[in-house]
Amino acid sequence: MEVKIQLQEKDIPRQWYNLAPDLPSPLLPPLGPDGKPIGPEMLAPVFPMNLIEQEVSPKKWIDIPEEILDILYRWRPAPLKRAIHLEKHLNTPARIYYKDESYSPPGSHKPNTAVPQAWYNKQFGMKRLTTETGAGQWGSALAFACSLLGLECKVFMVRISFDQKPFRKIMMQVWGANCVASPSNETNAGRKVLAEMPNTPGSLGIAISEAIEAAVTDPSGKTRYSLGSVLNHVLLHQTIIGLEAKKQLKLAGEKKVDTVIGCAGGGSNFAGLAFPFVADKINGAKIKIIPVEPTACPTMTRAPFVYDFGDTACTTPLLAMYSLGHAFIPPPIHAGGLRYHGMAPLVCQAIVEGLLEPKAYHQNKCYEAALTWARTEGPICAPETSHAIAAVIDEAVKAKEEGKEKAILFNYSGHGLMDLSGYDAYLAGKLTDYELPDEDLKKFTAPLQNLPKAEMKKSGKW
Amino acid sequence: MEVKIQLQEKDIPRQWYNLAPDLPSPLLPPLGPDGKPIGPEMLAPVFPMNLIEQEVSPKKWIDIPEEILDILYRWRPAPLKRAIHLEKHLNTPARIYYKDESYSPPGSHKPNTAVPQAWYNKQFGMKRLTTETGAGQWGSALAFACSLLGLECKVFMVRISFDQKPFRKIMMQVWGANCVASPSNETNAGRKVLAEMPNTPGSLGIAISEAIEAAVTDPSGKTRYSLGSVLNHVLLHQTIIGLEAKKQLKLAGEKKVDTVIGCAGGGSNFAGLAFPFVADKINGAKIKIIPVEPTACPTMTRAPFVYDFGDTACTTPLLAMYSLGHAFIPPPIHAGGLRYHGMAPLVCQAIVEGLLEPKAYHQNKCYEAALTWARTEGPICAPETSHAIAAVIDEAVKAKEEGKEKAILFNYSGHGLMDLSGYDAYLAGKLTDYELPDEDLKKFTAPLQNLPKAEMKKSGKW
Repeated sequence: MEVKIQLQEKDIPRQWYNLAPDLPSPLLPPLGPDGKPIGPEMLAPVFPMNLIEQEVSPKKWIDIPEEILDILYRWRPAPLKRAIHLEKHLNTPARIYYKDESYSPPGSHKPNTAVPQAWYNKQFGMKRLTTETGAGQWGSALAFACSLLGLECKVFMVRISFDQKPFRKIMMQVWGANCVASPSNETNAGRKVLAEMPNTPGSLGIAISEAIEAAVTDPSGKTRYSLGSVLNHVLLHQTIIGLEAKKQLKLAGEKKVDTVIGCAGGGSNFAGLAFPFVADKINGAKIKIIPVEPTACPTMTRAPFVYDFGDTACTTPLLAMYSLGHAFIPPPIHAGGLRYHGMAPLVCQAIVEGLLEPKAYHQNKCYEAALTWARTEGPICAPETSHAIAAVIDEAVKAKEEGKEKAILFNYSGHGLMDLSGYDAYLAGKLTDYELPDEDLKKFTAPLQNLPKAEMKKSGKW
Repeated sequence: MEVKIQLQEKDIPRQWYNLAPDLPSPLLPPLGPDGKPIGPEMLAPVFPMNLIEQEVSPKKWIDIPEEILDILYRWRPAPLKRAIHLEKHLNTPARIYYKDESYSPPGSHKPNTAVPQAWYNKQFGMKRLTTETGAGQWGSALAFACSLLGLECKVFMVRISFDQKPFRKIMMQVWGANCVASPSNETNAGRKVLAEMPNTPGSLGIAISEAIEAAVTDPSGKTRYSLGSVLNHVLLHQTIIGLEAKKQLKLAGEKKVDTVIGCAGGGSNFAGLAFPFVADKINGAKIKIIPVEPTACPTMTRAPFVYDFGDTACTTPLLAMYSLGHAFIPPPIHAGGLRYHGMAPLVCQAIVEGLLEPKAYHQNKCYEAALTWARTEGPICAPETSHAIAAVIDEAVKAKEEGKEKAILFNYSGHGLMDLSGYDAYLAGKLTDYELPDEDLKKFTAPLQNLPKAEMKKSGKW
């Protein structure tokens, strides 16, 4: 058997899959400051209308424009690989497959949505995109996409990362983006923070505020804002991962998959792989689907399902999701992409329905899994991806204990070549495991009781 | 047309190609301290006999053991890709193809020989390999290979890189290697240097001496030394690149290739791609084959063809090659892998024969090419690889001027994600171009006149 299952370009999926219309209960709408559902027009200063249409689309399948596919062909279809060396090491009867999303030039799944977002903005007549980035994974993906499409790109990068992790910043510059440390002097939001706290390390919340302000205040009207996870249209674009995987599993001779696993921060790489399989589960297939998060930021496993803001500065609409509270500041774990206080509403409603079985892992266990991976399969994974691998190993060991042949599929969301300092800390025994204390969970979620309630009717089927 | 031309695992080449017996004039042998050709037995303390046999083999084709292929399948066959976006940007009638060697877990072509070397050493009963590394590209590849094969790996890393570029060192540690700064206290060679110059930044020459000493003095006799370029068996292992490329070009519908290009430091990635095409040229095909080097270290374009030592410390046998002199210290260009004073003897004899047309480029021009690449094709290339791309662009522009359709093939030897500081310097306009002054060339090559002469009979056919 080949360990790499390749698809030809001509076999790439030509539509994205939208889970929303398949969910047993309707998606709870985002709410405005008045507590009422916001209409598409209220998002128009921030996003182009063609992406807003996708955000609220009731259609199950949405065509992928050929011009977008022409760009994705640079690295897609991504290979599906069989982890036979890890299987042997674990002596498991399970067959472990993974989608290798590390092949994109920025090194992760992020360009799967960065490219369509840039393309739709260009179609809508936009000249420039703004965004925020923490450690730089998303910022570099959007810089890459804008470079290929001839759009300007402005990235507000959290200052502490800008200063301490220069390499992602250089990547953005190689792709022609203008990357500035946030808070910056370029926005009112930034100037206000700098006046009060000139030495602040910055935060993702501040950077979001700056990026949105820079978009909506551009007098030319040719600038919009771009977000790398959480929103429906972002998850939509990522479903190409799972749709490719389905075709490849068939090529590999797998009639069904038993377990689907992905790490989840904002939810996009997980949803991208898992949603096409969630559709099967809704239609009666028996599949265990596991989003994995860090114990340090236990959104899905411990937080309440509520309406909350998407950012710490409370500038976004209210979203219905599991939230640790918009003021929650996660501990400094190395998986920067998993340090979000909320979770994509689509993922959350699937959890409330009982379609998904979230798990949380400590980072030492994840690095242990990452090391096992590197020393059996070979590649060095991103710290985020290591959470998926930790869960895969647990499931494969369980299959061995139960003596069951199982097909396990997970998303290898990115490589860890830009994040080696976490490995260094782990190898030196200097990595701390964090468990969110109950009193902190209460403290950060208490204020959410004053916001509208997120009331969702469960179908009770799962 | 698909931009990625994939081979199935079952179509991987099952033999390596050895250029030596096809060369019109016999390969000049390595010489011992007495000026006489050294026999295989003299290399036995340093390398295992099965690799020595390959080093001196008169056979044109050498079988690749299945167990080695089973490891290479992790990333091989490597895709051949068509650079259609660069073609469009240059508006050239040339068709540009490249072998993408950046997909290996360490990120370059180096594992193509690291894996066989580790495997043959294990077959020969060895438990441990030693090597030296500059910036860490080779060290990380050998660490990777040893990890997969269960061998111990000891890497002597030039101290200035060990201190300034910690990321490759962390990669080696992730793969379980023991990486120490050289000069170290672990060898006589290291201790001697430290006693004289306690604050030395180290050098590749010192690191080689340490690695060889650590191998040959191991009382268990279970340790050997491993080298990442220059030697015949290393180039042999890399020919899988060009052999795959031939099959893939056929799949792409190319009846012949007009131009083959690769960067050359020690010569292994260039030879790996080019030698199977050199064979065609020897048999009458019209192909322009270009090894590219930095102007700062102009071995092939300006140095004399001589017998010289492979290392600065004069501990290796004498090799017949173009050499800037074993005492030559190249300026600090960012393409660390192209800073070698010599060149693989097989590559050198092919040049003397007139089979190859070497070119030299300044690093600013190479980074300009790298930026064009990143902003058209997408990926960020290694500084070494940028030399190949600069030559490719020149050839493609020439094809346009001449109005000629041409098939150009080059080796994308590695990604640049661990080498972003060079891009940073280039973007800031802080990169220096170096031209070796004639008087320096004379100074460093003068002492070579006291060594045996390298006399090679040209066939005069090219």
